[in-house]
Amino acid sequence: MSKKSFVHYSEDCDFPIENLPYGVFSTNDDEVPRIGVAIGDLILDLKKTANIFRGPLLKDKQGVFKQTTLNDFMALGKQCWKEARASLQSYLLIENINNQNKGVFVKQNDAKMHLPATIGDYSDFFSSYYHAYNCSLMFRMEILKSNWRYVPIAYHGRSSSINVSGTLVKRPQGQIIEDHNNPIPIFQKTKRLDYEFEVGVFIGGELNEQGKPLKIDNVDDYIFGIVLLNDWSARDIQLWEMVPLGPFLAKNFSTTISPWIVTMEALESFKTDNMQQDPVALPYLRHDDKYNFDITLESYLKTDDSIVTKLCKTNYKYLYWTAKQQLCHHSITGCNMKPGDLLGSGTISGPTDDSLGCLMEITFNGKNPLILANGKSRTFLEDGDEVIFTGYCQGNGYRVGFGTCSGKIIPNE
Amino acid sequence: MSKKSFVHYSEDCDFPIENLPYGVFSTNDDEVPRIGVAIGDLILDLKKTANIFRGPLLKDKQGVFKQTTLNDFMALGKQCWKEARASLQSYLLIENINNQNKGVFVKQNDAKMHLPATIGDYSDFFSSYYHAYNCSLMFRMEILKSNWRYVPIAYHGRSSSINVSGTLVKRPQGQIIEDHNNPIPIFQKTKRLDYEFEVGVFIGGELNEQGKPLKIDNVDDYIFGIVLLNDWSARDIQLWEMVPLGPFLAKNFSTTISPWIVTMEALESFKTDNMQQDPVALPYLRHDDKYNFDITLESYLKTDDSIVTKLCKTNYKYLYWTAKQQLCHHSITGCNMKPGDLLGSGTISGPTDDSLGCLMEITFNGKNPLILANGKSRTFLEDGDEVIFTGYCQGNGYRVGFGTCSGKIIPNE
Repeated sequence: MSKKSFVHYSEDCDFPIENLPYGVFSTNDDEVPRIGVAIGDLILDLKKTANIFRGPLLKDKQGVFKQTTLNDFMALGKQCWKEARASLQSYLLIENINNQNKGVFVKQNDAKMHLPATIGDYSDFFSSYYHAYNCSLMFRMEILKSNWRYVPIAYHGRSSSINVSGTLVKRPQGQIIEDHNNPIPIFQKTKRLDYEFEVGVFIGGELNEQGKPLKIDNVDDYIFGIVLLNDWSARDIQLWEMVPLGPFLAKNFSTTISPWIVTMEALESFKTDNMQQDPVALPYLRHDDKYNFDITLESYLKTDDSIVTKLCKTNYKYLYWTAKQQLCHHSITGCNMKPGDLLGSGTISGPTDDSLGCLMEITFNGKNPLILANGKSRTFLEDGDEVIFTGYCQGNGYRVGFGTCSGKIIPNE
Repeated sequence: MSKKSFVHYSEDCDFPIENLPYGVFSTNDDEVPRIGVAIGDLILDLKKTANIFRGPLLKDKQGVFKQTTLNDFMALGKQCWKEARASLQSYLLIENINNQNKGVFVKQNDAKMHLPATIGDYSDFFSSYYHAYNCSLMFRMEILKSNWRYVPIAYHGRSSSINVSGTLVKRPQGQIIEDHNNPIPIFQKTKRLDYEFEVGVFIGGELNEQGKPLKIDNVDDYIFGIVLLNDWSARDIQLWEMVPLGPFLAKNFSTTISPWIVTMEALESFKTDNMQQDPVALPYLRHDDKYNFDITLESYLKTDDSIVTKLCKTNYKYLYWTAKQQLCHHSITGCNMKPGDLLGSGTISGPTDDSLGCLMEITFNGKNPLILANGKSRTFLEDGDEVIFTGYCQGNGYRVGFGTCSGKIIPNE
């Protein structure tokens, strides 16, 4: 049964008192980015609150909530994150209704959202079984028979071009092969612009020094929270450039994340079984505790006539490699991880035709056009198209939601 | 003919008045990192100097020299970099010998060097023709016949694990295939630990906004300077993990750079012809001006008996893709570049057997052991081995040198 706050919201609101995600925002009257917590359609402005965090761990560390990013708070670690959550829930409970009038709330509609953290390094995994299966099929890759079931495959991504939801995405240009019988590249705008529906994990705590890998047993202590993530991809540029060192320009022009980081504490009660792994993972990656989450993920395409087509309904639980395994693997050669680093899951696809996380899969690499709600069709994205992701965990009488992660394609002129 | 400074040094010193590279250092009596300029075996401590930079562009921007990294200075752009160099040269000329006694010099031997900049994003290219040719031969890749001559191939690297010269490198562990007829990975320490002799380019200036590529014509305005770079690589881990998304753990455990950034102004007189490109580059990458540099690069292996073996003598001029082309290509999809970003060149190999930039090439992937000066042999690096890179441009009566980029392998216990 849901708890009650003096802030009112409906049962299908993304931000009930059970959620309390962190974000960074600014307003017209104070343009300096600051930390807030979403509740209903409001933001609790942590710059304006005094003395919310009175627990033993945080009472002398209020400064972390007065920063322009969440990095310092992320660095404090799991026990502090738990204490902060307890303090915030208590502050917002209906019995503390006197907090309602302290001038510490901002309407979400009046706020401009910013990136929640300075992202030092961003890595992107390839952890969804059905996505890997579909890619293997499309490109006749043997990865499922070779390394993929042993290695949580990933590549390093570009940090500087990560944006918060709502940022426009200019159609990129690059080297493209038009005629594969005559592989001479031409320089042009991508004709195969795609989204990839992913989830991103922010990490924190007192992470490992260089040369000292994290351990699978307690690696979840370093996972702070989750956002929705769109790894925009130019498939034609990707195909030509990615041998032998992987995708580069095809994915570094823009990555979009949702602005509110939903904490692992808020997701705790939505844990579900991990996917069965065959073969069993190597010992350094093996864990028996559940670290998969039942998060419904939906994507939509809004064309410039404002008509919306549902693209897919998938679920975070279709990840083969858990976020624990991803983070542990990332550090295993001794790579030092830092608070604010972001790990993308890779495109999350489910087993059915209506649960595919990118257009490349939906249209089988452009061969089978998708018919939209307005009767038009798409193989890949066109200028003016807006891609919108949403996500939520369904509780009993409440939802823990992620808000939206959206981006609109603008022409390259 | 060389200029003369009141600081004394020999003709083969790396740091004459013609060089003046920037670095960040600290000392026992002041542990806060600060910016310095190398001259002879001294460092001019810019925190202690007052009013050196009196030119019109810098006179109100002295603050950039009082930071703990070079990022703010890098951000100012080419005209400021030129003015700074002129002011520094003037300050150090023999006719201004009165500056000698102002207590603004520190011995390099008394300084601890730090990373010169906060590196937001690090990307690593694959731009040496002979290295690409040798890799193609070893792994039967068709890249020279497909994309490599059109695309300055690169991948995103890991920023957090970049270290300054002298940092110890712990032998990494990971998934490795021992028997390629039975490709089941085992988890063990790498047996194929290698160095890669590269050069890294730091960029700066008022770089491009997201969505707005840089132009080849003036992209050199954004290139600040050069360091030596060792892209340590675990070849057995790399071979197993890198399909389909490129190298990840095999290269993210450590990257080492030399501490002094030699500026493009100091390298100007060592420009040499670009390599002939066939086919001619696409227009967005095409430039006729020289942007190749005659930098002699030498690598050495020092075993734990202190005996040194010369590994190679190669040259920066063996890059097929110039740093202008690398940077322009990096931004061409609209990726926003930032001051302090680092671009690795990729392993630089020359055409001869004694000019190969990594052990994998020297030993033909471990097949032909290298005989060391102490009579022992190596296929890949062993614990206790120290790899040392040096580099210099030979002027008339002086050298513009890079100092050293070194790292010693320590066991993983």
